[in-house]
Amino acid sequence: MTRPATIPPTYQVDFEPIGKRVDVTPDTTLLEAARRAGIALTATCGGMHSCGRCRVIMLAGHVSPADEGEKALLTESELQSGYRLACSARVQSRVKVHVPPASLVTGQRLQVTGESAGLTPDPPIWAYPLEAPPPTLHDPRADLERLTAALPQGTGASLPVVRQITETARTHDWRLTAYLRDAEIVGVAPPGAGPVGVAVDLGTTKIAASLVDLTDGTELAAAGALNPQIGYGEDVISRLTYALRGPAGAHTLAALARETLDALLGDLTAQAEVNRTQVAEICLVGNTAMTHLLLALPVSQLASAPYVAATHRALDVRAADLGLAAAPGAYVHVLPGIGGFVGADHVAMLLAGGLDEMAHVTLGIDVGTNTEIVLARPDQGALTSTSCASGPAFEGAHIGHGMRAASGAIEAVALTETGAQLKTVDDAPAIGLCGSGMIDAVAELRRWGLLNARGRFERDHPRVRSEPHGPEFVLASAAQGGSRSDVVITQKDINEFQLAKGAICAGVESLLEATGTSPEDVREVVIAGAFGAFLNVQNALAIGLLPPLPHARYRQVGNAALVGARYALVSRRMRERAQAIAAQTRYLELTTYPQFKRRFALGMGLGSRE
Amino acid sequence: MTRPATIPPTYQVDFEPIGKRVDVTPDTTLLEAARRAGIALTATCGGMHSCGRCRVIMLAGHVSPADEGEKALLTESELQSGYRLACSARVQSRVKVHVPPASLVTGQRLQVTGESAGLTPDPPIWAYPLEAPPPTLHDPRADLERLTAALPQGTGASLPVVRQITETARTHDWRLTAYLRDAEIVGVAPPGAGPVGVAVDLGTTKIAASLVDLTDGTELAAAGALNPQIGYGEDVISRLTYALRGPAGAHTLAALARETLDALLGDLTAQAEVNRTQVAEICLVGNTAMTHLLLALPVSQLASAPYVAATHRALDVRAADLGLAAAPGAYVHVLPGIGGFVGADHVAMLLAGGLDEMAHVTLGIDVGTNTEIVLARPDQGALTSTSCASGPAFEGAHIGHGMRAASGAIEAVALTETGAQLKTVDDAPAIGLCGSGMIDAVAELRRWGLLNARGRFERDHPRVRSEPHGPEFVLASAAQGGSRSDVVITQKDINEFQLAKGAICAGVESLLEATGTSPEDVREVVIAGAFGAFLNVQNALAIGLLPPLPHARYRQVGNAALVGARYALVSRRMRERAQAIAAQTRYLELTTYPQFKRRFALGMGLGSRE
Repeated sequence: MTRPATIPPTYQVDFEPIGKRVDVTPDTTLLEAARRAGIALTATCGGMHSCGRCRVIMLAGHVSPADEGEKALLTESELQSGYRLACSARVQSRVKVHVPPASLVTGQRLQVTGESAGLTPDPPIWAYPLEAPPPTLHDPRADLERLTAALPQGTGASLPVVRQITETARTHDWRLTAYLRDAEIVGVAPPGAGPVGVAVDLGTTKIAASLVDLTDGTELAAAGALNPQIGYGEDVISRLTYALRGPAGAHTLAALARETLDALLGDLTAQAEVNRTQVAEICLVGNTAMTHLLLALPVSQLASAPYVAATHRALDVRAADLGLAAAPGAYVHVLPGIGGFVGADHVAMLLAGGLDEMAHVTLGIDVGTNTEIVLARPDQGALTSTSCASGPAFEGAHIGHGMRAASGAIEAVALTETGAQLKTVDDAPAIGLCGSGMIDAVAELRRWGLLNARGRFERDHPRVRSEPHGPEFVLASAAQGGSRSDVVITQKDINEFQLAKGAICAGVESLLEATGTSPEDVREVVIAGAFGAFLNVQNALAIGLLPPLPHARYRQVGNAALVGARYALVSRRMRERAQAIAAQTRYLELTTYPQFKRRFALGMGLGSRE
Repeated sequence: MTRPATIPPTYQVDFEPIGKRVDVTPDTTLLEAARRAGIALTATCGGMHSCGRCRVIMLAGHVSPADEGEKALLTESELQSGYRLACSARVQSRVKVHVPPASLVTGQRLQVTGESAGLTPDPPIWAYPLEAPPPTLHDPRADLERLTAALPQGTGASLPVVRQITETARTHDWRLTAYLRDAEIVGVAPPGAGPVGVAVDLGTTKIAASLVDLTDGTELAAAGALNPQIGYGEDVISRLTYALRGPAGAHTLAALARETLDALLGDLTAQAEVNRTQVAEICLVGNTAMTHLLLALPVSQLASAPYVAATHRALDVRAADLGLAAAPGAYVHVLPGIGGFVGADHVAMLLAGGLDEMAHVTLGIDVGTNTEIVLARPDQGALTSTSCASGPAFEGAHIGHGMRAASGAIEAVALTETGAQLKTVDDAPAIGLCGSGMIDAVAELRRWGLLNARGRFERDHPRVRSEPHGPEFVLASAAQGGSRSDVVITQKDINEFQLAKGAICAGVESLLEATGTSPEDVREVVIAGAFGAFLNVQNALAIGLLPPLPHARYRQVGNAALVGARYALVSRRMRERAQAIAAQTRYLELTTYPQFKRRFALGMGLGSRE
């Protein structure tokens, strides 16, 4: 498709990890492009090339060469790493730019917590206060032996802990707290310093973490970050493809995730005012691709059929081996996975949602870049899970004015006679559309007759605007929005949305069929995930994204994967239950499921399924 | 003491790790200095500055700046690391030079084996042949789970092993050998590739290693190397002092030992024609300082009273964590120690010598830079050990023409009416004197009346030569020797020898007294250590170095520490016995033992104690 000569040439600029895209004319500065996209870059000098705060990193494409001002404000190694000042760099091709958090005025909304029922801690770590006599020529026992004499018999320690004991014991006159994990000392601390733990949900797009007091299970701090691997692929398959380019690719992805986790640990411990060495245990969940990339496990066998993991077992890995500063002997406990890409995050969701203990037939859906779906059939004693590649549309990717749920994202939409009522994140001026807003917009366009059931705009409708690239609907005009252009939803956006919907519908349908379940047998639907928490169920039902069941059967539980990770962090019983869930849940492979493609095509329709 | 003006100024040149010293006039090349010291440096061009083979590393002192020839033959980073060509560098101060093995025409004699009784293997590693069906879409089990389904229940693996399985399994069509250590897979290998193990004695001066077939316990290869830490101190205290200069010091010493161990593994596996990944277990012994430095354990508390180890426990450390290429999950098992500097090597010696199962009172002596002494009193059910700093005189250090037992070292001496009969290592022309030769020389000088019982030369004796620095005896004249100067033994050398002898005698005496044992109660004396194997017991008795017991009660067992390490490598029962030995052996601290100094002074005499 060639562009008509009357339209001036433009280049597309992608801002990562925000996921916002804008078209600009050649030689537009990146700062200006960001402004047009509604992204508030820090530029305290107002773009006068003097503050050096609007740093961005070039990921792809060409911009003007660094000028003298940039050379003065950036170091040689920063320039070599692709750092540029957005106020100076001018767009000269289609480009992809990474915006570091420090360059943003406000961050992105990250739901880090979810519903959490009461839980009696049964922690894997116990704190032992102890006191030992200092060594003398008449009592020259070695440090470790001196310490363990004051602990239950048979206690041992790894080398890094032995190293820690010698200095800490002398600093605190042999009065210490020892953190024990079964018979292993994972760290020592001054008297009174109790052990804390961190639960992590390592998502394809977002990383959410929670710091917990391991003695009583209370949450002391929460934090979130975008998964920085996103610059190397938005979905799991493109990440794996990048990792398979060679050892450097896999190494880069592992290092990015590990560094971000380590920064989150720093953030959490600072918030809670505890020492890094008090972090005595970490419990981590993620889908199979995310945990494999983090742990630098082989992925070639996972990237193509038959999609085999290196392992789905629960693992105990030293935090230090992943570059995480914590108690020197601390472990990262990775929950077990089930099959294919259905990994530890799904097991955690089942654990948090209690899907293994349901009294009635329950469907669980965790919408994300990969959507995991589970059906609990207590009458058959069976749990069956599957996963479908719903793509990143709900994260705002591949949508013209799509963006993630950051400040200024339209998250809810209701059309009126003459316009649209919008709710934006942080109530900031609208600059784009996130997943929940997208669902609302589609449902409202259908309701008001602007869109038909096949997902086509009614070109003749007076509120549908005709543009050279096709029909579109204006959600927010440049005047009311925070962007220099209108925020619109185009025919192409609707098509992208339909692809995601088709995948989810086909997944649910196939799972129900494979288990011999009719939709009306389902007594409860658990909607998990950060995105699911903001979803308008009524609208999702109206367009047939969710099975046609009474609204009351739906339960939105937020980031259940993180809640499950927190359960397993503080409770050994919960770890055993996670093991049992992983062992008992059957995995349904969709790629070979009969008529999956036909169901997918049918699922793309936008009518209610009632 | 000022030097008379008539004697031209000279600078002392120390060649490490050979331990040979020579005095040269200013501007002598290092190549010439080495020749005078009898050290055969590789110089295929004959010193014409063109072959670049005579590389040495400057450790201390000044030589002429690098000339153009050196700049052409050495890289920039080599020059920065202190590399020089011996043919070009001219001595301009007292210097200390490291000679890499590659620059030597012949290596040093290293006794790597010792007496070894038959032993039924009871190895910590078992090899399991297995075969598994390859994955399909209908059987998409993960790799580790697929493998362990063919192994005993409950088998697990660490991350590096999981990484290895994925590729190895596919290369060999899921037909593999798994190496199991209890319930842990430490590595996988092609079908038929059996596990091997390596026993290591990490000595202050020498490292000896032995490669063993773990299925039947047979030795497949042996190798030895000098401990390269020697450039940073000849005895344990000076090494610890260097490590305490800062993290860089400790890091350097750890890295040197680890690199040499890794090179020895390479040497052994090449000799035996096995793959590095077949090395499934390593068993290592050394004194407390050596194991602490290798493992990067803290040493400040070990370097001063009350000389406390970080731990004396047996340790299982991942080979990979020490930079050793082996099976990805292989462990280094470090045997337990006893107390102070009496470490795992001593426990191994007790194990190999069967000191814990003696039917009669037995004394064990392992002569080295540190000399460990043990007394077994089966009648009292007691083992008592101690350690004394005998210093490196027996290794040739601090002795004018002293050297280690390398090619050309005089290792045995018998005086005749008119001269001296010499036995040298490799029967090469004599260039210096090693420990066993020193003992012979002192005994012969006493026997022929050239030396009195207080260790003084009889200046009037016609065979004693008078020099400005004092009396001396010519063992080999420049004409007959391989050196350009006479090989002599001086009054100062005798004094150094007496210090070492005093320490050993005081150690033995104190130990006997502390255990209420009279010398004649001792029914057997086990002489261990590489040096001990070459010792002339008759001569050692004649000068009172060893207790006055019939020659028949002495047993020379060679490197018993390595034999003990090999026992523990192939037998779990032997590991248990080592644990029991470490737990039951009492440690006698000599620094605070009554009258130790007086005994030391008395022990310096050179009379037989009969």
